[in-house]
Amino acid sequence: MTTTSARTLPTGQDIDAAIAEGRRAYELDRKHVFHSWSAQAQITPMTVLAAEGSYVWDGDGNRLLDFSSQLVNTNIGHQHPKVVAAIAAQAAKLCTVAPQYVNDARSEAARLVAERTPGDLNRVFFTNGGADAVEHAVRMARLHTGRHKVLARYRGYHGGTDTAVNLTGDPRRWPNDRGAAGVVHFNGPFLYRSSFYAQTEEQESQRALEYLDRLIEMEGPSTIAAIILESIPGTAGIMVPPPGYMAGVREICDRHGIMFIADEVMAGFGRSGKWFAIDHFDVVPDLMTFAKGVNSGYVPLGGVAISDAVAATFADRAYPGGLTYSGHPLATAAAVATLNAMQDEDMVANAARIGEQVLGPGLRELAARHPSVGEVRGVGVFWAIELVADRETREPLAPYGGTSAAMGAVVASCKANGLLPFANYNRIHAVPACNVTDAEAAEGLRILDIALGVADGYLG
Amino acid sequence: MTTTSARTLPTGQDIDAAIAEGRRAYELDRKHVFHSWSAQAQITPMTVLAAEGSYVWDGDGNRLLDFSSQLVNTNIGHQHPKVVAAIAAQAAKLCTVAPQYVNDARSEAARLVAERTPGDLNRVFFTNGGADAVEHAVRMARLHTGRHKVLARYRGYHGGTDTAVNLTGDPRRWPNDRGAAGVVHFNGPFLYRSSFYAQTEEQESQRALEYLDRLIEMEGPSTIAAIILESIPGTAGIMVPPPGYMAGVREICDRHGIMFIADEVMAGFGRSGKWFAIDHFDVVPDLMTFAKGVNSGYVPLGGVAISDAVAATFADRAYPGGLTYSGHPLATAAAVATLNAMQDEDMVANAARIGEQVLGPGLRELAARHPSVGEVRGVGVFWAIELVADRETREPLAPYGGTSAAMGAVVASCKANGLLPFANYNRIHAVPACNVTDAEAAEGLRILDIALGVADGYLG
Repeated sequence: MTTTSARTLPTGQDIDAAIAEGRRAYELDRKHVFHSWSAQAQITPMTVLAAEGSYVWDGDGNRLLDFSSQLVNTNIGHQHPKVVAAIAAQAAKLCTVAPQYVNDARSEAARLVAERTPGDLNRVFFTNGGADAVEHAVRMARLHTGRHKVLARYRGYHGGTDTAVNLTGDPRRWPNDRGAAGVVHFNGPFLYRSSFYAQTEEQESQRALEYLDRLIEMEGPSTIAAIILESIPGTAGIMVPPPGYMAGVREICDRHGIMFIADEVMAGFGRSGKWFAIDHFDVVPDLMTFAKGVNSGYVPLGGVAISDAVAATFADRAYPGGLTYSGHPLATAAAVATLNAMQDEDMVANAARIGEQVLGPGLRELAARHPSVGEVRGVGVFWAIELVADRETREPLAPYGGTSAAMGAVVASCKANGLLPFANYNRIHAVPACNVTDAEAAEGLRILDIALGVADGYLG
Repeated sequence: MTTTSARTLPTGQDIDAAIAEGRRAYELDRKHVFHSWSAQAQITPMTVLAAEGSYVWDGDGNRLLDFSSQLVNTNIGHQHPKVVAAIAAQAAKLCTVAPQYVNDARSEAARLVAERTPGDLNRVFFTNGGADAVEHAVRMARLHTGRHKVLARYRGYHGGTDTAVNLTGDPRRWPNDRGAAGVVHFNGPFLYRSSFYAQTEEQESQRALEYLDRLIEMEGPSTIAAIILESIPGTAGIMVPPPGYMAGVREICDRHGIMFIADEVMAGFGRSGKWFAIDHFDVVPDLMTFAKGVNSGYVPLGGVAISDAVAATFADRAYPGGLTYSGHPLATAAAVATLNAMQDEDMVANAARIGEQVLGPGLRELAARHPSVGEVRGVGVFWAIELVADRETREPLAPYGGTSAAMGAVVASCKANGLLPFANYNRIHAVPACNVTDAEAAEGLRILDIALGVADGYLG
């Protein structure tokens, strides 16, 4: 990491000049920018002036440790020099080309993705992000099976376009929900808040599978095109599926000719300490969606990895879907550089090690000391801290779909002490970059310790 | 434009080395890349090795005049040096940031877009492309009105995600059509193939409005959230709406409290010889979708321009939609550079002039000489050549939704003579960059003249 003086940003820009520019950006933002998932008049968005590695600089020039990876996408951290250079090089060579042509960056990115995906997921349909990846994966499953229904779990997220948000099993679906034809939600395994009265992970896994089995019997197996699951549900709470669950879903799908779509948009590309979260379960899905980590979001990119059987359906029959920027040269060149940098710098192994040796033990130690922590759970650089008002009742510190004064104070404490957290309802997620250092992870734990003290103060 | 020797590409790369690299890219593509809108085993995609200005170089090193602007998106031509430099500069500064933060590139892009949009379309929600722009515009209209139905015209295209493709009124909808709830299609004005037995543009306009009025009466005005229309339908055939039509639609929408969504994804940002195609009709829509030309597709970007009234609906009520890459710094920095370059180099006026002085007269002259041409129509750098097997019956030279030996031969002739055309069913579109030169436009007309001779040979 470049050493920067107190008065310059990593770009070398004078910090006071950058702050003044940031103020103008803020004014224009409030006049002209419409923000995602927000009541526009009720937000006072933070300005980001710069970023490098695990750090970002806010509009006042304060440096913050990025324990959010933005929206859990900067898996290689900010401004990785190899990827920045690759983007500039590809821009100078060829910025864009229509999807019907062959382009070397796209070809190489497809090869590198297919090399990493499990089983026979040998072909890649590139999209612009995770939501349209889900839209297209669902379409492929429907046309491949000739069936229409798609099953998705509660406590899951699949994107913001209409089909994707209707598959979503979190409150962001509610205002968009008009009973989308063919979407059925089910309860997945989540032992801490078990839907199945389970006491052990084994019970939770077995009962969740039995429940799914019965649901499919009632819905009609021959009507179901696909089951879509985040391999590890992300924003909904980082609930690592218990042993046997994912293999059980695979078996159910096989039994009924249902396509298994693994959504790896957030969990994929090193986040879980393996290339894909599904690799923890030795399961090969039929279709796999990805985005974010594929190029750390440096250029918008998503995609669907496709099994040979599904691809064969569209060998001689046109796939009825597409987009202008499918396999965009700049986006795929950034993916090539990202995947190579992750490999060369052993970032996936680092993520696994940080989870096992630093974040996992550190978070468990915090949980032991702070009564506001109901549970910590996760793997790799993918951890959730579930905050509760009462450890016995497990009443969340903010309602499902909402926030609370306590959670607001926790987030404020993190920021005041130099950490940018990822917060969702009653949870704080610790989701730094895959190449986070031990010292940075320890710094994050130290700041979280203070914030959890604030949370404790809200307990009855 | 850089002068290049016969044996180097514009990048300076040796052409034989590039051809060898292109062959490897082709092999990997066939193994690993899944292409839009295609039967994967039945395509032999062309390789693009390089591009500059109005030209691309294919996998054999042949230079082709790009009369397609790829998918009608490279409005400033290929590899514009100012935009290439801006992408490299922004990459070095800050590649990505989450949508909830303020970023200077995003703010400035929103300002420049809002400065160009008509009326009170003062706020911009950035998306990754045109399809998700349409998804979000429809959602905004539905939530703003509290109604569900959306009316869209036959012979129109709105994108590849599920809602967008179901709004689409061309055969790409068919394989995706499962009777999407709340989508109603109607006939728009298209005098050459009038649905209304009209003889004049005035009649076509008046009757199309009467038809729409009656349809709304039958569907129930209070059930209709929006009418979505490409300001000038693009891929479906570049049918410039006749005088009075768009103003009439605006009046109908006002009468019933229906949102008017103008889809400017293909027609916008100079393509029609004005910043937006809607500007030809002095109409202000409630929502406007855009993509492609906003940054020529150099980085994936789309968006929705939002009127003050619709924005007010989401001032104190959260807008329930979003995406990780909304207002992506790299994409919006490319938009800032593109819009400034278009302004500084007067490209919109150039597009208008080329349409009036070169392409319009030239295409009409070709139509007069070639019996296979049923009609030429368009404006700016946005022209369609409608090919027919018989001028009397107007039988198209390829069926609606299909192709034919004749159309295949026309496209092959274009390519063999050094022109990359945009072909759709029985039409060839002449859609070069907005900064195409007179000499390049004339070269395109010369090659089209030969290809139309080939088409003539297929006539009875």
